[in-house]
Amino acid sequence: MAAAMILSCRYLLICSATLALLLLRLCSGLSLDTVREFLTREEDTVVFGLIERAKHPRNTPAYDPGYLAGGGHGHDASFAEMFVRESEAVQAKAGRYQSLQEIPFFPFRVPFTLAPPYNFTTELYSAAALVNVNDAIWSMYFNELLPLLAKNGDDGNYAATVSSDLVCLQALSRRINYGRYVAEVKFIGDQQNYTTLIRNKDTDALMKLLTSEAQEDVVKRRVQKKAMVFGQNVTLDGPVETGNSNSSQTSFKVDPSLVYKLYDKWVIPLTKQVEVEYLLHRLD
Amino acid sequence: MAAAMILSCRYLLICSATLALLLLRLCSGLSLDTVREFLTREEDTVVFGLIERAKHPRNTPAYDPGYLAGGGHGHDASFAEMFVRESEAVQAKAGRYQSLQEIPFFPFRVPFTLAPPYNFTTELYSAAALVNVNDAIWSMYFNELLPLLAKNGDDGNYAATVSSDLVCLQALSRRINYGRYVAEVKFIGDQQNYTTLIRNKDTDALMKLLTSEAQEDVVKRRVQKKAMVFGQNVTLDGPVETGNSNSSQTSFKVDPSLVYKLYDKWVIPLTKQVEVEYLLHRLD
Repeated sequence: MAAAMILSCRYLLICSATLALLLLRLCSGLSLDTVREFLTREEDTVVFGLIERAKHPRNTPAYDPGYLAGGGHGHDASFAEMFVRESEAVQAKAGRYQSLQEIPFFPFRVPFTLAPPYNFTTELYSAAALVNVNDAIWSMYFNELLPLLAKNGDDGNYAATVSSDLVCLQALSRRINYGRYVAEVKFIGDQQNYTTLIRNKDTDALMKLLTSEAQEDVVKRRVQKKAMVFGQNVTLDGPVETGNSNSSQTSFKVDPSLVYKLYDKWVIPLTKQVEVEYLLHRLD
Repeated sequence: MAAAMILSCRYLLICSATLALLLLRLCSGLSLDTVREFLTREEDTVVFGLIERAKHPRNTPAYDPGYLAGGGHGHDASFAEMFVRESEAVQAKAGRYQSLQEIPFFPFRVPFTLAPPYNFTTELYSAAALVNVNDAIWSMYFNELLPLLAKNGDDGNYAATVSSDLVCLQALSRRINYGRYVAEVKFIGDQQNYTTLIRNKDTDALMKLLTSEAQEDVVKRRVQKKAMVFGQNVTLDGPVETGNSNSSQTSFKVDPSLVYKLYDKWVIPLTKQVEVEYLLHRLD
């Protein structure tokens, strides 16, 4: 009788805990659907950002550490790095990085003076919440993507150019580091399997469990289509590019195949790297 | 004979001066075509900016001067104003406003420390080059446009929200204050007529001479179409909105009729105001 009561109590406790967890998830609004919706909307932001950066020429001096050093300013960073550092300091002061969705490229502690602090709900597991691949994004953006994105030339508008780099970097960082949220949702949905793999530090099996090639293929083809639709020259009476196979227009502000490549080679693999690293800290 | 030589010399001088002016125009690249091309490309930037701002809720406290004042910070400006001031200071330091295409909302003199100065070609008449309507743009954006653009709500992401306000403000300011370039091209193309009207300070006649209702109608309908094409939800297999009359999709990230209204009620009239004010200083 006593044993039956203990078992029944334990069962009730487990049920309550599961229910509480479910309610927590419902309240925080984090589900595979909301996560996918966020990522899909961020694709538009990424494509808009690339189109806006492509408006400017390459402007190489802005990225050459020798440019500032040569001016006798005593800097060993590039103009772009100095600009991003100073802009992020203003953003930090304004509280941008209070939200865990935003991670700066140059973390610092700035007294938060512009506004009262805001209490953001936290959907991430705290020990893993700051996992990010911003260093890899920074290097990929400037060394791999930018040379393919921007046309050769120098118009001297370095501040406006690097402002649009910063918009791209922030969009890519938010998109890729959102892998933390994806991983959290997947972990909650299949705790038993993930827990075993995390305990065994089995990164290969984790990567496999996180991968859906069919879903990745949809994403890559969709961003390519978005580059066609958003990057066309819209005229009042001309035909509108629909991004389908029978498309006729050949002039786009950003090469749609470059956007496909960006997601194929960098965005999706880096997102999965974030997911795995997050999970490896999920039981800390 | 002597009189004929003097006349001939005078004729040669006038021809040379006209040729020199023509060459100057050709070198600077400023013509009605290049000016229209610039304005058309800026439409995309404006529409992208509005779509990105509409991603965030209204976030009213960011625009309320009482929000910062209440925090005991001693500010009488809104969070948005403080943020724009600090961001523009960084941009000024980085040399953004060396280019006359960019005019800050809060002008200041900042020692230019981030990079060596860049010699921009100047296509504008110097006494009129700084004519701008940034105060009117600021007031229109926050008091008229934003309440129609952003959905009600408060998610606390004020820094990210106001960053996207700044992108919109900069795009609108660049677009509207580009009226200076439009006016310069029109003045050069019809100096005699404009000179008479400018000398008489006949603003009504200037406004009439600058106005082409047919051209304005094309612009307004084109930006509305751009809002439909760029603001749709692109899916891999779904139909693509072409912005033509037989369009079926009803859900856009920004209401296309609001973009029509923005150009009809504010962008085009303010641009013409800039053109007239520029011309009134064109002979100073």
